[in-house]
This record gives sequence, C-alpha cells and structure tokens, in this order.
Amino acid sequence: MSGWIAIAGLGPGREDLVTPEVTAMLAEATDVIGYIPYVARVAPRDGLTLHPTDNRVELDRALHALQLAAQGARVVVVSSGDPGVFAMASAVFEALEKHAEFGDTDIRVLPGITAMLAAAARAGAPLGHDFCAINLSDNLKPWSMVEHRLRLAAQADFAMAFYNPRSKSRPHQFAKTLEILLEECGPDRLITFARAVSTPEEALNTVTLGEATYEMADMRTVVLVGNSATRRVGRYVYTPRSAE
Amino acid sequence: MSGWIAIAGLGPGREDLVTPEVTAMLAEATDVIGYIPYVARVAPRDGLTLHPTDNRVELDRALHALQLAAQGARVVVVSSGDPGVFAMASAVFEALEKHAEFGDTDIRVLPGITAMLAAAARAGAPLGHDFCAINLSDNLKPWSMVEHRLRLAAQADFAMAFYNPRSKSRPHQFAKTLEILLEECGPDRLITFARAVSTPEEALNTVTLGEATYEMADMRTVVLVGNSATRRVGRYVYTPRSAE
Repeated sequence: MSGWIAIAGLGPGREDLVTPEVTAMLAEATDVIGYIPYVARVAPRDGLTLHPTDNRVELDRALHALQLAAQGARVVVVSSGDPGVFAMASAVFEALEKHAEFGDTDIRVLPGITAMLAAAARAGAPLGHDFCAINLSDNLKPWSMVEHRLRLAAQADFAMAFYNPRSKSRPHQFAKTLEILLEECGPDRLITFARAVSTPEEALNTVTLGEATYEMADMRTVVLVGNSATRRVGRYVYTPRSAE
Repeated sequence: MSGWIAIAGLGPGREDLVTPEVTAMLAEATDVIGYIPYVARVAPRDGLTLHPTDNRVELDRALHALQLAAQGARVVVVSSGDPGVFAMASAVFEALEKHAEFGDTDIRVLPGITAMLAAAARAGAPLGHDFCAINLSDNLKPWSMVEHRLRLAAQADFAMAFYNPRSKSRPHQFAKTLEILLEECGPDRLITFARAVSTPEEALNTVTLGEATYEMADMRTVVLVGNSATRRVGRYVYTPRSAE
C-alpha cells in the first residue's frame, strides 16, 4: 500500500476549466485536503474523505497530507487556480523540508488555470507582453517589499497581475498600491478589476488609473494593470506583442 | 449564420492538460487556424477545415480568422500553452484594431495551461512567490529592453520564467542573459531548464547559475530562475511563500 500526494489546481471556478488530469486524480483519491470553499467543489463519494480546513493553516494542512500519504492514503491537496501560484504547492514543500521523515513521499503537482490568465482571457489579452505577478498580501512579506517591487515592475514596463489585492484586515494597502502606480505609470494606464471569473458572480471592469479607486477590488478580485502600450479595441483590452 | 472566433490554448502538449472548454469548442468548429505543430494536435473530421501555417505569420493568420468568421465560420485559433501568454490572442486583437470592418466579430479567449506553470509543476514550486514572465526573443522588441527588464526583475527579487530563450538566429543572446543574471543574482541561484514538458521528450535539469551554459536551452525549453530564497528539497525545487 503506497500512498501519494497530488497538489492539484481546480482552476478559477467553472468545471470545464478543470483539466482532465486533475479530474482523473480526484477519482483515485482517498482523501482531499484544502481550504473549505475549494474542498466544497469536490463531489463526495464512498471511499473519499474530505478534509476542509480554514484559511491561514496552510502548513498544518500540508503536514496532514504528508502524514496521511505515509499511512498509504492517496491524497489530493486542492487549490483554486494553479497550485504553484500563491497556493498550496510551496506550503507542501516547506512542510517536507521541516519534516525529513517524509522525505520519500511521492509528490506530484498538477497545474491549473490560474486566476490572472482566466481574467486576462475574459478581458482580451492584457498580459500579451512581458508581465509579472505580485501577491499584494503582506501576511508573508513586509509591505516595503511590495512597494519596492511595484516601483521596479512599473519601471520595467511590465504588465502586472495582482493577487489578494485587498482584505478586511488591510484596507489601506491597496489604496497605497494605486497611489504608487499612478505616480509611476500616470493616470491613463488601463487597469482591469476581474472578480470571480468564470463563476456566476463574474464581473469585469476596466478603467484608467486616474479613475480607479480601492473599493473596486475585494477578496475575490484579481487586478490586471497594462503596460505603457496596453489599449482598448472594441470591448477588449489588449497589450500588443511588440514594444515600440 | 453567425460566425465566431475562439482563441484557444492547447496547453503544453499532453491531452489531459487540455481543458474541457477547449475540447468542446473544437468539436463545434468549422475551421482551425494556427502554427503547423499546434494544428497537427487537432484530429481531422468531416466538416472541419484545418489551416496550418508557418511561424512568424501571426497577423496574416489573425486576419484570416476574422475573414472566415465574417463569412459565418466557427473558427478556433490554436496556440500551445495559454493564448494570452506570448501567443495568438494579442495578434488577433492587433488585426481587429487594423481592420475596423471586423469590429463586431464575436471573439472569445479560452485559457490554457501555459508552459511556465506546467514546467514549475514538474520541478516543484519554483514560482511560489512573486514572479515575472519574459519573452527573450527580440523579434518584436529591442534587445536593450530585455536587458533592462532582466536587471530590474533581479533587483526586485522576482522569480523569473523565460519563454523563447534561444533560437538558431540568435544563439548569443541567451548567453548574454545568463551573464546578466550571474552578475545580478550570484553563482548560487537555482535555474531550471524545462524542455518539452508533458511530452515524451520531456527533460528537466536544475543547476546553479554558476553551472548554467547557454546550450542547456533550446527552442522547446522554458527556463525558470528562482528568487534569492529558492532552494531544493529532495528532488524538488521550491520558492517559499514567505520572504525574509
């Protein structure tokens, strides 16, 4: 009886954005571990134990997965989007590093459609040139580092995608983000607020930095900022492949 | 008879990494347009015309899609990976901007598993913190801009993913990239060369910048560079979620 862990990305929400690889792995699982709303996306069945846990216990969750796999369980750790982008994959490897006794665990990471690419697809092609992805939460890094990265990313003329732009515990940081961007990129730069993409609550809103306010983002929003060449064509927003 | 265009991402290669959304859209298509090896991934059937074209004719291909859709065709434009990441989505919107007569075309972008996330998943979680994606080809931008972005990305301590690291026509630029990275990040920084991920030719190789040589990349390779905290645990490479 040999257990394993698959760290799987469920995509942004709609079922037809889950890869067949992930669907097949879930069908083989004995245990599914993850944040409550993601585990809720997995259909219960005989022989499958669901382990929904609260937010901010990523390392406990990862250790639990290692323990179950060591006992022979086939464990799928679920994230929304892609598990390697601000999600559970790093947490599992952190736990593996801390607990050498699980060093032989068979671990696979199964990619998924990450939020920024689902959002970009709905908007048009705002990430069609070089771009960066920044987690705006300061749970795991100092806010000064976020500010430093924002300024360098703007100076590099990257298009940008922001995950976790705003939470109840830090309402002012996203306002500060917009202030920095306005300073570095000017008021005409396009910014897209993409909420709950591919779900019934989906809402897209593209404005200029001059028009943007921090209330336009919430916890379910991914934010896309264009580079200096990003523009509208009809109802779409796109970044040309060429830089002048 | 009302035509449409779906710009679809076929993922990195393996069929179980194609989303059901894309599979369903291909089943409805009358025409498939794209670069020869990507069109070759679509099974021929009655009622479907395949239009494989050579590299570097993206705008012609995009215009052809707009013309066919205007005639009532249901056109899927295929890219590998995600169509919004250094692929066909921007080209279609560029063509739309140039040809106002097609302004009413129904265009959808269908996201896919992009090469860097498929590669990261195979390696572990090297993009587990803030990161950037840079196309190293200078077909569409001056090489000086690539160098500028590389330096700023290193100074921002982003993990990095490089698309199109090397081609026959510009063998020296990737050597220059490695030189810049070595200067900015030091010899111990981890770099992963991920070739043809999810295909039978898949090969992964993680070394330090001090050990890296430009021959380690070819046209089918995506290159991942860690940030200052990226490390190995067992056979995996990962970037911790926290920054010190």
